[in-house]
Amino acid sequence: MTEFPQRRERVASALASHKVEALLVSSPASIRYLTGYTGSNGLILLTPSESHFFTDPRYATDAQQNIDCKVHISKKTLFDDAAAQVKRKHLKRLGFEPGWMQVEHYERLKTKLGAGVKLVPTSGIVEDLRAVKSPAEIALIRASVNANSEAYAKTLLRVKPGVREMDVAAELEFQMRMLGAEKSAFETIVASGTRTALPHAHPTSKKLELNELLLIDMGAMLDGYASDMTRMSFLGRPSRRIINFYKAVLEAQLAGIAAVRPGTTSGRVDAAAREVLKRHELDKAFVHSTGHGLGLEIHEGPRVAKKQKTKLQAGMVITIEPGAYIEGFGGVRIEDTVLVTEDGCEVLTPTPKELVHL
Amino acid sequence: MTEFPQRRERVASALASHKVEALLVSSPASIRYLTGYTGSNGLILLTPSESHFFTDPRYATDAQQNIDCKVHISKKTLFDDAAAQVKRKHLKRLGFEPGWMQVEHYERLKTKLGAGVKLVPTSGIVEDLRAVKSPAEIALIRASVNANSEAYAKTLLRVKPGVREMDVAAELEFQMRMLGAEKSAFETIVASGTRTALPHAHPTSKKLELNELLLIDMGAMLDGYASDMTRMSFLGRPSRRIINFYKAVLEAQLAGIAAVRPGTTSGRVDAAAREVLKRHELDKAFVHSTGHGLGLEIHEGPRVAKKQKTKLQAGMVITIEPGAYIEGFGGVRIEDTVLVTEDGCEVLTPTPKELVHL
Repeated sequence: MTEFPQRRERVASALASHKVEALLVSSPASIRYLTGYTGSNGLILLTPSESHFFTDPRYATDAQQNIDCKVHISKKTLFDDAAAQVKRKHLKRLGFEPGWMQVEHYERLKTKLGAGVKLVPTSGIVEDLRAVKSPAEIALIRASVNANSEAYAKTLLRVKPGVREMDVAAELEFQMRMLGAEKSAFETIVASGTRTALPHAHPTSKKLELNELLLIDMGAMLDGYASDMTRMSFLGRPSRRIINFYKAVLEAQLAGIAAVRPGTTSGRVDAAAREVLKRHELDKAFVHSTGHGLGLEIHEGPRVAKKQKTKLQAGMVITIEPGAYIEGFGGVRIEDTVLVTEDGCEVLTPTPKELVHL
Repeated sequence: MTEFPQRRERVASALASHKVEALLVSSPASIRYLTGYTGSNGLILLTPSESHFFTDPRYATDAQQNIDCKVHISKKTLFDDAAAQVKRKHLKRLGFEPGWMQVEHYERLKTKLGAGVKLVPTSGIVEDLRAVKSPAEIALIRASVNANSEAYAKTLLRVKPGVREMDVAAELEFQMRMLGAEKSAFETIVASGTRTALPHAHPTSKKLELNELLLIDMGAMLDGYASDMTRMSFLGRPSRRIINFYKAVLEAQLAGIAAVRPGTTSGRVDAAAREVLKRHELDKAFVHSTGHGLGLEIHEGPRVAKKQKTKLQAGMVITIEPGAYIEGFGGVRIEDTVLVTEDGCEVLTPTPKELVHL
């Protein structure tokens, strides 16, 4: 990836408008976005003219070979070394990410910096850039989405009554791994029967049975980029009530997708899905938001939720995933990964959306 | 698990000595420890007489059925509702976990609480309890360790030249899943050849070749509890240099284990392993610490590192994992999960430690 220097330049050029001379980047996904670092202990200090990267000795070789910044290998905490750099450069106003810094680290940093340096909370400097994906990033998300859908298709062939929810989850994750994923983007949800009414059910040793709904919510992390999809199937012949329930949620999902275009707000997309469920008297059963951005993180900006004012832009990638959950009966959620394009949107997820009868 | 009320009582009885009237618990592992909650959005407010649990509507059914606290379902941020409870009870000193609270949440909480409530950073109240495991917890860790070792043994049968590192990782994780694990405890490390010199190598599409070292570092999360193991094998017949290198690290690992007993410090355990590597002139190649506690988290107290003063106690579970890494040649790490017992320690990991020739 040759985009790292440009990305850092874009961040650097945004510093003045946030009234800071430098930015400390501590969000792991943003650190990866700006340097390619994939380890678990990194920190970036950006000034308009310099990029400093801090890590510990475990990552020394990797960082020195692959990261095009001034690399510092810290023996103790990275924040101490970053503070020393700030003081060496006589910086007076240092921006930081309040959503990505623990109070503990903040207090330590403040002590090390002393009274001469002001720590300024900034919000969204890197995240806002990350929300709009480059063509290279869109290609990576597409690859992640495709691997995820292929893993789903391969696994579905083996789903039948008697198989445990956890076996299905194991198979889904094995298949995505074999297709190149580093890991699943989140804990795969496999819920059957009335357990589908729990929006975030962990897979259990419960066996699938005939005449049950099956909800699978899965995503891959592939080359660092997330995908996210939810699909429903039914083991046997669904009742009229199930079919209508499914159709209502699908109608809401399609309405959400139809509302996606540059210039609209993500709140309006949420409302489009929600209104359909209201017409079906299912709005109270829709207990979460319609979607979220995804990229280097499975959940990132923009939020697609009630009253959100964020304007959608071409290049944003979001999920559209309305659901309805009725305790003791079951739940239905349908979810695609969707790219905002110049003239509307493109549904990246290739998996069909009919209720599958297994 | 019926230990939750007692655990909360132990926390509650520690509040006075920290000079707080209540504690806000935001560490996900500590929340699970005190309530059994396994979701991604929970918060606990503990006073000496009451336990309040906050989550969002996605987890309403689950929380209301399974959590034996006063359950609050928050429409907005959990911190706002917790702040409202604090004010309703006229509490003046509220403890929080500075290592588990983002500056952003802290600032919001401070605003909501107003000037009448003092936010007091506390450290280790729940973590210190968690460091010493109950018999029920030790049984869970043992199950996790055993599943992990069994997954390793099953996978090793399929390892041969031509297989990609990522295939090995996929198989390891599939096997642990089939044996009951929810997921891997961390990103499984599979490194071959000179890549073993990177202590935290991600598995790649590199194929295993004849006459290469293979390092596998893997752990399961099973019923919420972690295991952690590193083993080495060699594809073909290892050279004398490899054999001696391996023996030096094994000697260091055994010296670390021999030093584990109640009353000693974790720093002395680290030193015992480090001294052996120094005798073999490999101390500079040992770029990390000897180990760490594990339990509901893969990394928790006590740290087993240079100069650590923490006294080991029976019931603590730690890893012993010295390693040595030589750029361009290779690396060796050997790691067990070890229980501190009344009279020394028990190595929980059942996998043999000979260098396996594949």
